[in-house]
Amino acid sequence: MQVDLNADAGESYGVYTYGHDEALFPLVSSVNLACGFHAGSPLRMKETVARAKAHKVAVGAHPGFPDLVGFGRREMALSPEEVYADLLYQIGALSAFLKAEGLFLHHVKPHGALYLKACRDRETARAIAQAVKDFDPGLPLVVLPNTPYEEEARAMGLRVVLEAFPERAYLKNGQLAPRSLAGSWITDPKEAARRALRMVLEGRVEALDGGEVGVRAETLCIHGDNPSAPQVAKAIREALEGEGVEVRAFD
Amino acid sequence: MQVDLNADAGESYGVYTYGHDEALFPLVSSVNLACGFHAGSPLRMKETVARAKAHKVAVGAHPGFPDLVGFGRREMALSPEEVYADLLYQIGALSAFLKAEGLFLHHVKPHGALYLKACRDRETARAIAQAVKDFDPGLPLVVLPNTPYEEEARAMGLRVVLEAFPERAYLKNGQLAPRSLAGSWITDPKEAARRALRMVLEGRVEALDGGEVGVRAETLCIHGDNPSAPQVAKAIREALEGEGVEVRAFD
Amino acid sequence: MQVDLNADAGESYGVYTYGHDEALFPLVSSVNLACGFHAGSPLRMKETVARAKAHKVAVGAHPGFPDLVGFGRREMALSPEEVYADLLYQIGALSAFLKAEGLFLHHVKPHGALYLKACRDRETARAIAQAVKDFDPGLPLVVLPNTPYEEEARAMGLRVVLEAFPERAYLKNGQLAPRSLAGSWITDPKEAARRALRMVLEGRVEALDGGEVGVRAETLCIHGDNPSAPQVAKAIREALEGEGVEVRAFD
Amino acid sequence: MQVDLNADAGESYGVYTYGHDEALFPLVSSVNLACGFHAGSPLRMKETVARAKAHKVAVGAHPGFPDLVGFGRREMALSPEEVYADLLYQIGALSAFLKAEGLFLHHVKPHGALYLKACRDRETARAIAQAVKDFDPGLPLVVLPNTPYEEEARAMGLRVVLEAFPERAYLKNGQLAPRSLAGSWITDPKEAARRALRMVLEGRVEALDGGEVGVRAETLCIHGDNPSAPQVAKAIREALEGEGVEVRAFD
Repeated sequence: MQVDLNADAGESYGVYTYGHDEALFPLVSSVNLACGFHAGSPLRMKETVARAKAHKVAVGAHPGFPDLVGFGRREMALSPEEVYADLLYQIGALSAFLKAEGLFLHHVKPHGALYLKACRDRETARAIAQAVKDFDPGLPLVVLPNTPYEEEARAMGLRVVLEAFPERAYLKNGQLAPRSLAGSWITDPKEAARRALRMVLEGRVEALDGGEVGVRAETLCIHGDNPSAPQVAKAIREALEGEGVEVRAFD
Repeated sequence: MQVDLNADAGESYGVYTYGHDEALFPLVSSVNLACGFHAGSPLRMKETVARAKAHKVAVGAHPGFPDLVGFGRREMALSPEEVYADLLYQIGALSAFLKAEGLFLHHVKPHGALYLKACRDRETARAIAQAVKDFDPGLPLVVLPNTPYEEEARAMGLRVVLEAFPERAYLKNGQLAPRSLAGSWITDPKEAARRALRMVLEGRVEALDGGEVGVRAETLCIHGDNPSAPQVAKAIREALEGEGVEVRAFD
Repeated sequence: MQVDLNADAGESYGVYTYGHDEALFPLVSSVNLACGFHAGSPLRMKETVARAKAHKVAVGAHPGFPDLVGFGRREMALSPEEVYADLLYQIGALSAFLKAEGLFLHHVKPHGALYLKACRDRETARAIAQAVKDFDPGLPLVVLPNTPYEEEARAMGLRVVLEAFPERAYLKNGQLAPRSLAGSWITDPKEAARRALRMVLEGRVEALDGGEVGVRAETLCIHGDNPSAPQVAKAIREALEGEGVEVRAFD
Repeated sequence: MQVDLNADAGESYGVYTYGHDEALFPLVSSVNLACGFHAGSPLRMKETVARAKAHKVAVGAHPGFPDLVGFGRREMALSPEEVYADLLYQIGALSAFLKAEGLFLHHVKPHGALYLKACRDRETARAIAQAVKDFDPGLPLVVLPNTPYEEEARAMGLRVVLEAFPERAYLKNGQLAPRSLAGSWITDPKEAARRALRMVLEGRVEALDGGEVGVRAETLCIHGDNPSAPQVAKAIREALEGEGVEVRAFD
């Protein structure tokens, strides 16, 4: 049995540092690397690719909205054509650093408000999937299950990778609980690890609004900018490996 | 006998248009396509790649300094590491649009102040050449002959393509005449065409400061943002073809 | 009787030109000058302020979303605090150029998607109005009448200036007709002039969906990036002055 | 006897934090606040102005080159007209936040590579001084003594404020020792404090290359991004106050 453990990375920019790359890289099996639009500068991308290579961590592209000051967390009304072009641009930019290191692009996972928009807006989801397909039809796309985003990615014929969030509460309808709800955020590393284990071993987890909910998980997301991210990642990894689940990047 | 005719392209940005792409694409054999740092937005890059495909024009990357407001014409004190990373980023971004269209990146030619800095600063030249090599050791790099830039590109083992400027006056020492000198700029299309022909057929041209100067030219540059650029390109192409010189992208 | 004729201006950027400032400045009484976020660079702002001074045209600030590649036409999910800060920043930047020329800031009118968002989102409208008030409580704010934007601006105690659009069709409920509707855009300069005259003299105009609609107009907007903008401005100005209406900036 | 203690501030940007504003504001008498070109976003500027108000710290503008990824530390070949326009823009933007808080702009001090360029390039120095004068002829400009920058600022008739650097070594010719020289950087807070005291009380300090050098100091600069900046500031402030020197913003 195996599962991927992913975290965002390379979100530093110029003199600015962000996240916990140094502590997280030994713990995760793949990273989503910022591509300069919402975070990440060319030099930081180069350095982060080198770090990933040293830790044998698979590198995916983490394209976002062109909004550095807002860190890609503010939804923008981009046309599908603009989403498509912005995706290709960012995927290509990152690929060059991988090529220079003799590595391959492992997957694509959109960032922040772009990911969330894809989860409910079919045109955005389709534009993302089309860009991935046009760049490389075999390139995996990470999606939130049970969303139009998953459907559009499948309809495009892509290799779709289902993501789950051990640090986030779910509703019984299968959706992530809104952050405004009490209990929507799991901060205790042990509890996050316990939930991760249930997701992987049983394919389900307790719902915030009662009962249980099915959760399909090929990759588990660690929120890398959380101050306790390294502890959470460590707890989850140890719990998984303790039960014989191999933590490795998806194929 | 053959020569390449190149022009900068794709320098529009968002709602802004710049240059004469529509008129020039039927006349040139290759273009240097802006990659978003000094000019060019993702959507414009996509559209320009499609235009190049339609006209069977070879597409090179035209990376520049990260200075949109200055159009990459203001020298910046980037470290060699920053030049290297900025080059890889831009080359990769453009390559994705070419990949999506089933095309290949034809060459790299730096833009504006970055090109000029490479011509006299060996560290900058080496960083550019290293980025090209690390992306693809067979990728041609366009250089100004008789400069440290040419030497460093050759020392890196790259396929070096020599560029000449029929619209610019040369000094007898082989350098381009500074723009501040009277007569440094040839605006008459017929005269530019006559000079282009001498460069290609005889490998030499009149020097601004007397006598003649040897000019090695595998590609001739048309300044695409010149108001008369289409007329100049047309005159040069007709002159070349009238003498049996084939205008085609270098291999 | 008098009315103001306004147009957006200063939307050029670096080497890029946009709009018809040269032709429009002799025809309008006020301009809304881009402040560098969606368009306009510092040097272009300086030049445009000088042009406004030469033509004795009143200068207002035209703040927009921080989205140069999208020209401020793509709605962004900024928090009210971010809208407030972005407004103050842009208003202040423009004010410095006016101060250096011995001029005063005449008004504020948000641009594009920010203006449209203010028309329906009270928090955005309030943040804009608060920024204007905190900068200068006597500074006029241009609004679209019959919107939450107008109401919030009035509730803030600002000098509110009502804007009408002779080139745009209205619905009988007082709203602007969506651009997707046939006939929503008046392109004939004479017809635009006739409508401008009715708006000013009678306070009403024909509605696209039948009957008439009341239109309160202290300032009439000319769309400066329209290819026929100068002709439209000329036709409107001549029509107004022919009927004895003075075209001058509001107090 | 009195002296000003200044530090750069407000250099955070979006989600990114930089420097030690929280620890430094209780210790300094004035800050140089980043204006969004090399660092600092509108919302961060607003927050930093509020913090300065709470600590009764005088706020100066800290304009820099338009180079966020390079933090304004990479020299750029801006024309004097561009420097002038970029200065006015940034000074105005910051002034709006001060105006909204009922505060006044206290001074101007350029940042990083722009400051250094002004110290040796008269055209740049003159453009900066002209922008300050055109914004407000009474606005103080902070300069490095014994440079063309000081001379141009004086020739412009500005209120010139002389700056000294207790953490930097001086050469006997009055210049700052290049950072490449061993001993050019004083990291021990006590030693920095001892030097600050000599500068203020005796107007001189030991030179790195032997003997002593005269140092005129109306304001002492603390490098705020130094990890030990708060300790250095505390040591200097205590040393000064221990000898009866009042630490307060210059008039």
